[in-house]
Amino acid sequence: MALADIISLEKNQTGIDSVVGILKQRFGERLQTSQSLLEQHSHTTTYLPSQLPDAVVFPHSSGEVQEIVKTCAEYKVPIIPFGTGTSLEGGVNAPAGGISVDLQQMDKIIAVNNEDLDCVVQPGVTREALNIHLRDTGLFFPIDPGANASLGGMAATRASGTNAVRYGTMRENVINITAILPDGRLIKTANRAKKSAAGYDMTRLLVGAEGTLGIITELTVKLYGIPEAVSAAVCQFPSVEAACNTTIMAMQSGIPMARIELLDKLAIRACNNYSDLGFEEAPTLFVEFHGSEGGVKEQAELFGDIAKEFGGAEFNWVTATEDRNRLWKARHNAAYAMATLRPGAQMIATDACVPISRLAECVVETMKDAADSQLIAPIVGHVGDGNFHVTPLVDISDPDEIERVEAFIDRLNNRAISMDGTCTGEHGIGQGKRRYLRQEYGDTADLMIAIKKSFDPDNIMNPGKVVSLE
Amino acid sequence: MALADIISLEKNQTGIDSVVGILKQRFGERLQTSQSLLEQHSHTTTYLPSQLPDAVVFPHSSGEVQEIVKTCAEYKVPIIPFGTGTSLEGGVNAPAGGISVDLQQMDKIIAVNNEDLDCVVQPGVTREALNIHLRDTGLFFPIDPGANASLGGMAATRASGTNAVRYGTMRENVINITAILPDGRLIKTANRAKKSAAGYDMTRLLVGAEGTLGIITELTVKLYGIPEAVSAAVCQFPSVEAACNTTIMAMQSGIPMARIELLDKLAIRACNNYSDLGFEEAPTLFVEFHGSEGGVKEQAELFGDIAKEFGGAEFNWVTATEDRNRLWKARHNAAYAMATLRPGAQMIATDACVPISRLAECVVETMKDAADSQLIAPIVGHVGDGNFHVTPLVDISDPDEIERVEAFIDRLNNRAISMDGTCTGEHGIGQGKRRYLRQEYGDTADLMIAIKKSFDPDNIMNPGKVVSLE
Repeated sequence: MALADIISLEKNQTGIDSVVGILKQRFGERLQTSQSLLEQHSHTTTYLPSQLPDAVVFPHSSGEVQEIVKTCAEYKVPIIPFGTGTSLEGGVNAPAGGISVDLQQMDKIIAVNNEDLDCVVQPGVTREALNIHLRDTGLFFPIDPGANASLGGMAATRASGTNAVRYGTMRENVINITAILPDGRLIKTANRAKKSAAGYDMTRLLVGAEGTLGIITELTVKLYGIPEAVSAAVCQFPSVEAACNTTIMAMQSGIPMARIELLDKLAIRACNNYSDLGFEEAPTLFVEFHGSEGGVKEQAELFGDIAKEFGGAEFNWVTATEDRNRLWKARHNAAYAMATLRPGAQMIATDACVPISRLAECVVETMKDAADSQLIAPIVGHVGDGNFHVTPLVDISDPDEIERVEAFIDRLNNRAISMDGTCTGEHGIGQGKRRYLRQEYGDTADLMIAIKKSFDPDNIMNPGKVVSLE
Repeated sequence: MALADIISLEKNQTGIDSVVGILKQRFGERLQTSQSLLEQHSHTTTYLPSQLPDAVVFPHSSGEVQEIVKTCAEYKVPIIPFGTGTSLEGGVNAPAGGISVDLQQMDKIIAVNNEDLDCVVQPGVTREALNIHLRDTGLFFPIDPGANASLGGMAATRASGTNAVRYGTMRENVINITAILPDGRLIKTANRAKKSAAGYDMTRLLVGAEGTLGIITELTVKLYGIPEAVSAAVCQFPSVEAACNTTIMAMQSGIPMARIELLDKLAIRACNNYSDLGFEEAPTLFVEFHGSEGGVKEQAELFGDIAKEFGGAEFNWVTATEDRNRLWKARHNAAYAMATLRPGAQMIATDACVPISRLAECVVETMKDAADSQLIAPIVGHVGDGNFHVTPLVDISDPDEIERVEAFIDRLNNRAISMDGTCTGEHGIGQGKRRYLRQEYGDTADLMIAIKKSFDPDNIMNPGKVVSLE
C-alpha cells in the first residue's frame, strides 16, 4: 500500500548491541536509548510510519562523528544522520535500526567571512540561528524552506523554499562540505574559492544525497547583503491559470522576483482562518521584491502591469516590516492552516516541479484530478521555480479514500515527470519516493546505485533511502 | 620536468587497429587518419606537447556516438572527446592514442524554450552560434570563456569567463546532460525542471569531469533576457592593490557587477599595442553593468564612489555598443596581445582562484614573485570571482628560465591552495595540473578516483586526464 510503502530491512541486532555498548562507554549521557527519544528521532512529520533507531548519540565535533562512524562501520551497523527532523519523506527513519546521529549540539558558527560573503558552520546551526547571528553584519542567509531546519539537513536534502527563485537552492549556495564517509574517512569537498574547475564536483554530489554517502560535519554557505529595500504585495486572480501565467510572464521578463508564491482558493481559505488574513477566497500570489529603493519600485511596477494583463485585482502593498513578516509567517504556517480544513485528517505532502511553461497546465490538470478524485487538496507553490505542493487531507481510516489518494499522487508524479519535470522539487526522495527515481531517471538510477555502492559497500549510511540497493 | 609533465600511457595498438578498421567501414569519409588532422586534434593551445590520436571520427547523433563508444569499449580503446580544441590543459591529447570523437558536426540547436529561459543543444554548438541563433528572441547565453568554445566542451570543463561574476559558471547554467557512458549506455542526468531534489546530482558530476566519465551528446542550458541597458567603463588605479580592493568592496556592497576584469600595467601595455586602446599604462578595471536604465545608472554611481575611495582615476564611460564591443574584443584578445610583449616566447597559462578577501594579497605576492624570478608575466583576471591569470612569457630554449618558471608556477598554485583557493578557477585539471589535485583535495582525490573506476573500469574515457589511475 503506497501510503506506507516503506520496507523494513534485516536487522543486525548483534552488531547494534555491540555498537551501543561501545558508544555508551565512550559518550556516556550523550548516548540515549529512551523510547520517547527514539520515537522523536524517527518522527517523520508526514504519513510515513516511524521506524525507530536503537540509540541516539549527540556528538560535538567532526572527530566524534568520525569515531561513531568508524565503530558502526566495524560492526556494519546503520547510521542515520539527524538534523532537526523536519524532513518530509522519511529521511530520519531507521528501517534496519541502528544509530541516529543527532547533530543539533554541533551548532557552532565557526567563521563569518564578511568580505567573501560566506560563512563556515557546523551542521546543527539552524537557518534562523544563523540569521540572528548575522544581524549586525548587514548580511543574511536567504534559503528558507519554511521549517527552522538545520543547515546540514538542508544541504543533505538540497532544500530550497520561497526565495530560491532569486537566490537558488542549497545546490547553488553550498561552497564546500566536510563529511565523514561510510568508512570513517574525513573529507573536505573543496576550498572556499567562489568557483573551481578542479576535478569532479564532490560538493554537489553530497548536496542532495540525503546522508546516504556521508555525514556532513561542517559546511561553508554563501551569504548575501540585506537588500536596501524590500517590498511585498498580494495580488488576487480570477483563476489559478491567470496566476500561473502572470508568474511565467514575470519570470520571462527577467524581473528578479525575490519570492512569488501561489496559494489557491482553498489554501487562502485556510490561511484566512488560521492567520486571520481577511483575503478574498481566490487564487492569490504573494510576491516580494528585493533591491534598491528605485529598483524595487521599478520591479513592482513591471510586475503590476503584467498581473493586470492577466486580470489580476489591485495590489495589496505590504511595505511595513511587521506587516510583511505577518504575511510570510502566514505563508509559512500554511501547512498548519491547511490541516484545519479537515480536522483529524492526515496531510500528504507532494512536491511536483515542472518547467515553468508547463506550470499552468500541470496545476490545472492536478486540480481537476483532485476534484474528480473527491479529494480535499489545497495548493501552495513556489511557482517562480515551477514547484507546487498539492496537499490532500486524507481520512486514513477510509480504505477507499486511501486508494483514491494513492492513485492521485501516482498520477501527479507521473504527470510532472511526463512534463519534463520531477516528482520532487525540494523535499527529496527519502523513503517515500524511491520508486519514482527510476521512473524519472531510467538507467541513470543505476549510476546512482553504482556511486552508492562505491562509497558505501556495506550500505550502512542511511540505508533504505534515495536508492534501492535491496 | 614540469612544463612537459605529461605521461605516455601504454598503447593497445591491436585494439586500436581493429577499432579504426570497424569505424572506417561504418563511417567512411567521416573517419579520418591524416597526420595534419591528427595533429590539429591534439593541438593543446598551450605549452604541453601534442600526443596524437590514431583517428578522428565525426558523429552526427547520440546514437552514432554510442556506436563509436561501444566499439571502443569492446576493444578497450581510448576515446577522446573533442569540441573546438581550445582547452588549456591538454584536454584533447591522446596519451595512449585512440579515437578522437570530434563533435563539431553535432551542431544543432534542438529547442529554444523561451518561456522556460532554456535551450536544448547538441554539444558542437558554439556559444557564438547560439547567441546568433537567439538574436531575435530577446534572450542570450551569457557564459563567455573568451574563445568561441563549444557548449559541450564548456560544460565538460566547467568553463566560465568574464561574466561568471553575474551569471555563474557552467556549473550553475547546465540544466541537464545526455551522455554516453564508457560502457556505451546512454543516460540523461535530469529533466528540465529548474530545480530538483531527486537523487544524486549527476548533472553536476558530469559538468567539469572533462570527458573522463562520459561524452556529452546533448545538453540543456539556461538563457537570460538581454538586459534593457548595458554600460561599460574603464577605471585606472595607482596600484593593483587599489584595483583589487575596489573589487572586493564592490562585490561586498552587493552591486550586481556583470563583468569586473583586472588588467595589470603589462597587460594594458600589450592591449594598447595590439588593440590600439590608448590607455595609461596602469592597473585597470574594465567593468560592465546590466539592468534597467535606472538600475545601470545606480550601479555605476555606486561603483564610481567606491573606486574613488581607493584612488581610482576618473571613469572612461563606454556606452555606445560599438565602443563596448571594441573594449571587450580587446580584453578577449589579451592573450594574443600579451604574446607580442616577447615575440617568440611561449605563454604559460595559469588559473589561480582564491576567496576574494585574499585576492589583493595573492596577486601582489605573485607579482613580487614574478619580479624576483625575473619573469615577464602580465596579469588579467576575472577578479569579481577571485580568479586571475598570470601568464609568464617564456623562452623555452633557456633551461634556466624554464626552471624559474616551473618553480614560480608551483609556488603560485600552492599559494592559491594555501589561501583556501584552487589551482584552477576555470581551465580544468586536464593533464597539466593533475599533480595538484591531491595537493588541493587530500583524500578527496581518492573519492574521485573511486568514481572514475566505477564509471570506467577500463580507463578508456579520456585517459590520463583529471585523476591519476596509472
